[in-house]
Amino acid sequence: MNDGFKTIALIGKYLSPEVSDAVLRLALFLRERGCEVLIEQGTASATGIGGQFRVAAFDEIGARADLAIVLGGDGTLLTAARRLASHGVPLAGVNQGRLGFLTDIPREEMLEHVGAILDGRARRDTRMLLEAEVVRAGERVFHTMALNDAVVSKGEIGRLMEFELHLDGEFVYRQRSDGIIVCTPTGSTAYAMSANGPILHPGVTGIALVPLCPHALTHRPITVSDDCRIEIVVLPPHDARVHFDGQSRFDARSGDRIRIWRSDHVVTLLHPPGYSYYSILREKLHWSAAPRLP
Amino acid sequence: MNDGFKTIALIGKYLSPEVSDAVLRLALFLRERGCEVLIEQGTASATGIGGQFRVAAFDEIGARADLAIVLGGDGTLLTAARRLASHGVPLAGVNQGRLGFLTDIPREEMLEHVGAILDGRARRDTRMLLEAEVVRAGERVFHTMALNDAVVSKGEIGRLMEFELHLDGEFVYRQRSDGIIVCTPTGSTAYAMSANGPILHPGVTGIALVPLCPHALTHRPITVSDDCRIEIVVLPPHDARVHFDGQSRFDARSGDRIRIWRSDHVVTLLHPPGYSYYSILREKLHWSAAPRLP
Amino acid sequence: MNDGFKTIALIGKYLSPEVSDAVLRLALFLRERGCEVLIEQGTASATGIGGQFRVAAFDEIGARADLAIVLGGDGTLLTAARRLASHGVPLAGVNQGRLGFLTDIPREEMLEHVGAILDGRARRDTRMLLEAEVVRAGERVFHTMALNDAVVSKGEIGRLMEFELHLDGEFVYRQRSDGIIVCTPTGSTAYAMSANGPILHPGVTGIALVPLCPHALTHRPITVSDDCRIEIVVLPPHDARVHFDGQSRFDARSGDRIRIWRSDHVVTLLHPPGYSYYSILREKLHWSAAPRLP
Amino acid sequence: MNDGFKTIALIGKYLSPEVSDAVLRLALFLRERGCEVLIEQGTASATGIGGQFRVAAFDEIGARADLAIVLGGDGTLLTAARRLASHGVPLAGVNQGRLGFLTDIPREEMLEHVGAILDGRARRDTRMLLEAEVVRAGERVFHTMALNDAVVSKGEIGRLMEFELHLDGEFVYRQRSDGIIVCTPTGSTAYAMSANGPILHPGVTGIALVPLCPHALTHRPITVSDDCRIEIVVLPPHDARVHFDGQSRFDARSGDRIRIWRSDHVVTLLHPPGYSYYSILREKLHWSAAPRLP
Repeated sequence: MNDGFKTIALIGKYLSPEVSDAVLRLALFLRERGCEVLIEQGTASATGIGGQFRVAAFDEIGARADLAIVLGGDGTLLTAARRLASHGVPLAGVNQGRLGFLTDIPREEMLEHVGAILDGRARRDTRMLLEAEVVRAGERVFHTMALNDAVVSKGEIGRLMEFELHLDGEFVYRQRSDGIIVCTPTGSTAYAMSANGPILHPGVTGIALVPLCPHALTHRPITVSDDCRIEIVVLPPHDARVHFDGQSRFDARSGDRIRIWRSDHVVTLLHPPGYSYYSILREKLHWSAAPRLP
Repeated sequence: MNDGFKTIALIGKYLSPEVSDAVLRLALFLRERGCEVLIEQGTASATGIGGQFRVAAFDEIGARADLAIVLGGDGTLLTAARRLASHGVPLAGVNQGRLGFLTDIPREEMLEHVGAILDGRARRDTRMLLEAEVVRAGERVFHTMALNDAVVSKGEIGRLMEFELHLDGEFVYRQRSDGIIVCTPTGSTAYAMSANGPILHPGVTGIALVPLCPHALTHRPITVSDDCRIEIVVLPPHDARVHFDGQSRFDARSGDRIRIWRSDHVVTLLHPPGYSYYSILREKLHWSAAPRLP
Repeated sequence: MNDGFKTIALIGKYLSPEVSDAVLRLALFLRERGCEVLIEQGTASATGIGGQFRVAAFDEIGARADLAIVLGGDGTLLTAARRLASHGVPLAGVNQGRLGFLTDIPREEMLEHVGAILDGRARRDTRMLLEAEVVRAGERVFHTMALNDAVVSKGEIGRLMEFELHLDGEFVYRQRSDGIIVCTPTGSTAYAMSANGPILHPGVTGIALVPLCPHALTHRPITVSDDCRIEIVVLPPHDARVHFDGQSRFDARSGDRIRIWRSDHVVTLLHPPGYSYYSILREKLHWSAAPRLP
Repeated sequence: MNDGFKTIALIGKYLSPEVSDAVLRLALFLRERGCEVLIEQGTASATGIGGQFRVAAFDEIGARADLAIVLGGDGTLLTAARRLASHGVPLAGVNQGRLGFLTDIPREEMLEHVGAILDGRARRDTRMLLEAEVVRAGERVFHTMALNDAVVSKGEIGRLMEFELHLDGEFVYRQRSDGIIVCTPTGSTAYAMSANGPILHPGVTGIALVPLCPHALTHRPITVSDDCRIEIVVLPPHDARVHFDGQSRFDARSGDRIRIWRSDHVVTLLHPPGYSYYSILREKLHWSAAPRLP
């Protein structure tokens, strides 16, 4: 029956030989289940398995696929999510040996779990996206989306940066620091966690602002509502690097205004049955594994 | 006109001579504005100004008042909020010299700001409350509400406690620590902030779980959705003290289950015009006061 | 030869059946090596193996033993160290399955490692001790020693404590908090680590002061020189509990002065050959296990 | 008498008009006291007051001066300290309005405090220096000294770095992070404090290792003994920037070994009478200003 999943795209981590193998096995499995299989273009060239299946660019995947399965790490899924965000294609992630926060299907049990998803037994999970633009002298000079985070950090000049934070048009503070992370609940367990940011369950409708090494010790992380409009102004004489999901990069100058808000789009993740956010967190953070009381 | 505020209760910090004075001045001002004034019972005995105004217990205040004005610190407002929570009476707070997160009207400008509120120029701000119960051997042995936090901490026996955390019925972790704070966004800037908890803007629909000195270094604060049902089970041989808003206290035993969830009630705070959450935060945390760019 | 280790005391964790077994095996091994064996009194009653070996109180162990071997966890070794501190008897620790910072000989390899120590192949490691007294109205009302830490924390009254810190007779700060930990480098990886205290290698001649949930966010841990005289004054109306090594407890009142300084005594730990402080830290903190470059 | 201070060098922050003025006033005061005054070369050109006093390069100052007085911020004093480190010239620092940890003489009381120092009433304070080298393929390619810190941080390539830490020749850990700070007690209140590093009193003979946003949450700061030889190996494919005292910069490549150890040189700081390390800390960190008990 395949529960409406007729056309399924496969997206693999490039340059990873183990992934090629898994992509092929999964493609054959899906064909057998009666699905049309699209192999993402870059994946096809990297794996060389294009010949047997239809090769498709991200745009075609966005337009036609009912599901995109990503094979790789969280980084691979982030890329796919950003590319497909405006199309609303749901995503599932198969990890390559090391459990990811987003790629939660172990490769060894890949066929079983993907089968269960096709059977309609997936857990559906909706994640907020950030949208960001950089405005220079009144003009938008950059625009992108992010599932995890936007990181504004000191640039080439000098050893720190200084910026102003405005929330919903109100001045909040001026800060000297190494930078600031703006992250979604999904991103709260990524880079932000290293910077002592708060863990936010995906069900929390908030955006976290996590300073990087602020000079003043009272600059603590704040979580704001997801309808908050965030503006970071790079103060002279400093420049800044801005990264989105650790992938897309923009070099900002003094005076640039980096604006970040919740996107109208969302990313839908499909998890295998039995998925638990907390159990992934527990495993990643090495929390005690078992209850003592029955 | 007084914008619907016909009956106004005054609640003061007991045993504070400066407060008596302010209560009296405010009561006279309100009478002049044509309001009926209720003086909270304890406040009346402590200040001795009962004679000139109607004295009322919290129940009557809950039933009849259109507004309760609290004179004191945040602790005084917390008590009033918990007592009036089920009645939906809005609250405004006049501090006694030191700006509070909740008591944001300076005493010197009290009449002006209260006047503005009566004129209908208040900023209305709705805050989530927690409801909590302790279940022992299947029976509820305690029940209360909290605007800031529930703090479960080690009791008399031993130097630490051990508990299990369950969220929405799912086991999340077992933890050895000094305890755990469960707080609302309002409570995130109170005790939880001292324990390295995350600051949550009141607009965030989340509840923060902040461990106190956890033995395992990876036990970080988590913010969960406000519809999450939280259960903390005290593990033998440990006992625990539980404080609500730092005021109401319950001594829990091994095996007790402390259950916490978002209350159906809310607290409505009225702030003077010009109120800004961020500017209070900035002042309390000594953040840089002024933007550099115009 | 036994390298000067003629008389060896065995001290076990009471009420632990596995320990009884290990104590007996070790005692027989030592007798075979030609050592005189002393079984610590409490250990003898708990294990019931007193009959075959000389039973001795801590005082006799202090006076006569050339080495005390502790079987249990770090807590057991701490007790022994404090009891024997003034006698200068070196200590070695056999853990009961879970590696300790202090009890670093695994029980399975106990005979081999103790043998190596008797052969003179131990690594000798000297650890600083703290000495503490409580002065009330000019009189010393309590005195003890600690290898790990002195923890001053809020008492029964109220939800916090307030104290003044004086260092070398100079006022340093007044603090409202849950308390403060004063720890040695040895104690820096115990309770203090849970409170975000700094890890101090045993070679550092310093004493760390680690606040517990301080109200002011700028109250950070400070490490002072080991010749610093520390005084903590409990301010009214608060009382305080003081724990030493998590074992000895004193209930302090308002106005009590808790004085802490480096003891003239030291504790000598004997580690098996191949011992490495960093490798224990790496294992306890789950740091990456292997270098990548040769 | 001037207590042996016959020749005194003045070093100012370049490009600061207020400093020019202060340098001139101080130079005239010193001449009046009978001292020979040397104006540091760069300071002379920046202020244009070279004509009236002897202008000297850092080498001559090192060789001839009995005291160097720095006018500026902590950064200016750091530069001077590094340039003069091998000569043993004591330093005193006059700040330009904002108290520094190192520049502790307020400009308004400059003449009075410098006078007191000349009278022999200074507090002498000796600070440890770090020495560092970068070894590439067995060759030393860089060498410098630092009074505050050496900061190894991610370079141009990628969003993180990976390195190995070796202490006294022993592998300690491999870490993925934004980098690591190695700092002296003097540097512990500078950049390291922003990165949650421990405050070390200058009397502590230790060197702190403070990771920057480590991926693994258990990578905590460690303080090692000051005789420890520290080696940080940059792992491929990452490069790294290394800053010393935030001033001197070296771009390190994969495989480079950054070695850091305590220098044989020290920096001697002269503080005015009444100087207190703790009172500066208290002021900088906004700790409560006054004891409550007499």
